[in-house]
Amino acid sequence: MTTEPFDAVQVITAKRDGRALSDAQIDWVLDAYTRGAVAEEQMAALAMAVFLNGMTPGELARWTAAMIATGERLDFSGLGKPTADKHSTGGIGDKITLPLGPLVASYGVAVPQLSGRGLGYTGGTLDKLESIPGWSGALSNDQMRRQLAEVGAVVAQAGAGLAPADRKLYSLRDVTGTVDSIPLISSSIMSKKIAEGTSALVLDVKCGTGAFMREPERAKQLAETMVGLGAAHGVKTAALITDMSTPLGLTVGNALEVRESVEVLAGGGPADVVELTLALAAEMLRLAGVDADPAANLANGKAMDCWRKMVAAQGGDPDADLGWARESQDVPATADGVLTRLDALGVGVAAWRLGAGRARKEDPVQARAGIVLHAKPGDHVRAGQPLMTLHTDTAELFARALEALEGAWEIGAEEPQRQLILDRVPEQL
Amino acid sequence: MTTEPFDAVQVITAKRDGRALSDAQIDWVLDAYTRGAVAEEQMAALAMAVFLNGMTPGELARWTAAMIATGERLDFSGLGKPTADKHSTGGIGDKITLPLGPLVASYGVAVPQLSGRGLGYTGGTLDKLESIPGWSGALSNDQMRRQLAEVGAVVAQAGAGLAPADRKLYSLRDVTGTVDSIPLISSSIMSKKIAEGTSALVLDVKCGTGAFMREPERAKQLAETMVGLGAAHGVKTAALITDMSTPLGLTVGNALEVRESVEVLAGGGPADVVELTLALAAEMLRLAGVDADPAANLANGKAMDCWRKMVAAQGGDPDADLGWARESQDVPATADGVLTRLDALGVGVAAWRLGAGRARKEDPVQARAGIVLHAKPGDHVRAGQPLMTLHTDTAELFARALEALEGAWEIGAEEPQRQLILDRVPEQL
Repeated sequence: MTTEPFDAVQVITAKRDGRALSDAQIDWVLDAYTRGAVAEEQMAALAMAVFLNGMTPGELARWTAAMIATGERLDFSGLGKPTADKHSTGGIGDKITLPLGPLVASYGVAVPQLSGRGLGYTGGTLDKLESIPGWSGALSNDQMRRQLAEVGAVVAQAGAGLAPADRKLYSLRDVTGTVDSIPLISSSIMSKKIAEGTSALVLDVKCGTGAFMREPERAKQLAETMVGLGAAHGVKTAALITDMSTPLGLTVGNALEVRESVEVLAGGGPADVVELTLALAAEMLRLAGVDADPAANLANGKAMDCWRKMVAAQGGDPDADLGWARESQDVPATADGVLTRLDALGVGVAAWRLGAGRARKEDPVQARAGIVLHAKPGDHVRAGQPLMTLHTDTAELFARALEALEGAWEIGAEEPQRQLILDRVPEQL
Repeated sequence: MTTEPFDAVQVITAKRDGRALSDAQIDWVLDAYTRGAVAEEQMAALAMAVFLNGMTPGELARWTAAMIATGERLDFSGLGKPTADKHSTGGIGDKITLPLGPLVASYGVAVPQLSGRGLGYTGGTLDKLESIPGWSGALSNDQMRRQLAEVGAVVAQAGAGLAPADRKLYSLRDVTGTVDSIPLISSSIMSKKIAEGTSALVLDVKCGTGAFMREPERAKQLAETMVGLGAAHGVKTAALITDMSTPLGLTVGNALEVRESVEVLAGGGPADVVELTLALAAEMLRLAGVDADPAANLANGKAMDCWRKMVAAQGGDPDADLGWARESQDVPATADGVLTRLDALGVGVAAWRLGAGRARKEDPVQARAGIVLHAKPGDHVRAGQPLMTLHTDTAELFARALEALEGAWEIGAEEPQRQLILDRVPEQL
């Protein structure tokens, strides 16, 4: 006989029939799922019922707490400095973590960034940093703590100890059509970020063709849900909703994005990357209780110093030549005019097909594959001049990448308006 | 690389988002599930999406066809006589199959009854017949065909070859809270019955506390759905909706129900069992194109002759003493008056606890365990006289059986009205 206090079928049918789950049911089902006492097919049915019937704010807060409780929760309160982190829901050319962590850390804030590899069109932050020779994100909790104390910025691979329920559930959602659910997305993100031990968190919720959320209303709903979850767990959380209809910056691809990030840290770089880095840094500093203008340390080189220390502390050579992929091909503009549209999704898929991203977790990525843009929406272009250059180590990949770019850009006459920061959700008191 | 024509996640998300699945998607997903190319957790998510978002009549007909196509479909068209079968959605004391098959067969109709064991409060038809010494339902298709030709009636264990998708899906639904769905129930039942090769089918859809369907509206909806599915597959199908608020007949339990069935075949037996047997037989004969009053062959012994041949053909001794359980205990009436209520569910659970049913597929049943009723709703009772007698080989089981009967009956003054046949759904032309 089983000694489980609940029956999985009763929990599933309660949610199926639109009832709220009790705290005890939620605690049990996530713990039992992590232990294997609730089967994958049972959690799949429950996830679909949650997808279709939703969760109340109270259920969702408990669900998130129960996910955290399946693993360890880091604690950096003894560091003697405030902690702040950023999470982006992911977008094409989104390399903001790379300049942002060192920038915020340069003001005496610890930034305990834990990162995954993800299954995106381009690699995750770990993939990007691994294009630096020698760099590794495989740190123990003690190594991470030491680096936070000494350098302030760290990017470490999320270990198996944080919210293991989320790891199982994330894989399951991926194959069962239950990814695109605000309660499931927000509890997945926030359980890991809360377990990570940061006391302040800024969310960058992307909106547009290259993002998970296509409509601003849903992006805002996700942002508000996550901000509420952060508050419920004692983490000061605010969110920006930012445009992802076109790529961020001028590079998409792992080493290409590192190079662009270094340009930003050197005081240059594309305007949109700089604008978003500063906006997110300002939020993080404010939530961490630091009164400072983040532009200062980009200009004076302190953020760059912190970056170099962070890379070196994790075995990387900040002066290494990142190199270029073996093959490249230009994509020319087909008319004179203004680039009116450059679709984030099309560029993302093209970069992915060039080898910058992976289809399965176990696939490798090409460090140097990707796309360099020579024009962004609003720029004037001339027929025959390159709009972008594709890079890959594998020339056969060009054809399918070019297919992905068909219809992904338009040349016209009117200058498009782009608002990078679409909305803001302040922290709850 | 996979060579599957569809992606399970796309099929799941289509149904999740309320879209109708294409014929090709339905064919693929059920075939791939049977082959193991769609995982249990994926089918669980799809089943929950079907549960919550439903299926159109067109989708459901195709879903049923696709379930049938995963296995063999028997064909008895060469027998030289019409075929007709009955399916009941299951109820307490429902032994109708036992007298009904031989009765209809005695008119020259082949009744190719395939049966399962089920997980009911009492055993399935196979369990009941196995209480006859020597009887076996393990027949090959050839043995079944020969018996249909020679005897007309047969009760065989459904083999692994019919609608294997249903077997897998049924087990999955059982643990994922996706049982109680009209599309999933109706396609499960009808896929097996259509694959069984009958050309006419009468459905007995039970309604009441002892049935799966509690409300007449839902029972009728299920009946109409199944009648439509039968028509879509060329099987003349009609349905009766019958009362299951109180047990059928005066016995609940395997050998006890065989004994009562023999009484009916001998021209006696409880009025409700006789009424329902005759009503279902009349429908089957009519659909099979036989113009006859089924009461005749109950009265003249021809149905009994057929029963004896059927039992003997399957190795059973029709004259064997079925015996009695080792232990018995009376449940006395607590007042003088009229039995106003005798709840089917309470009696069913009590019989189950006495050993007549099983909790898990691999559990045995007690052939002789069960309950003999001495009064039915409407009967006058006197305080201290036995309302019913409990039978089991295991005296320790009485206590929990008695608990199940608490509140399951009431004695009052007013005679209750019972309508056995609540509604009828005629075949579609």
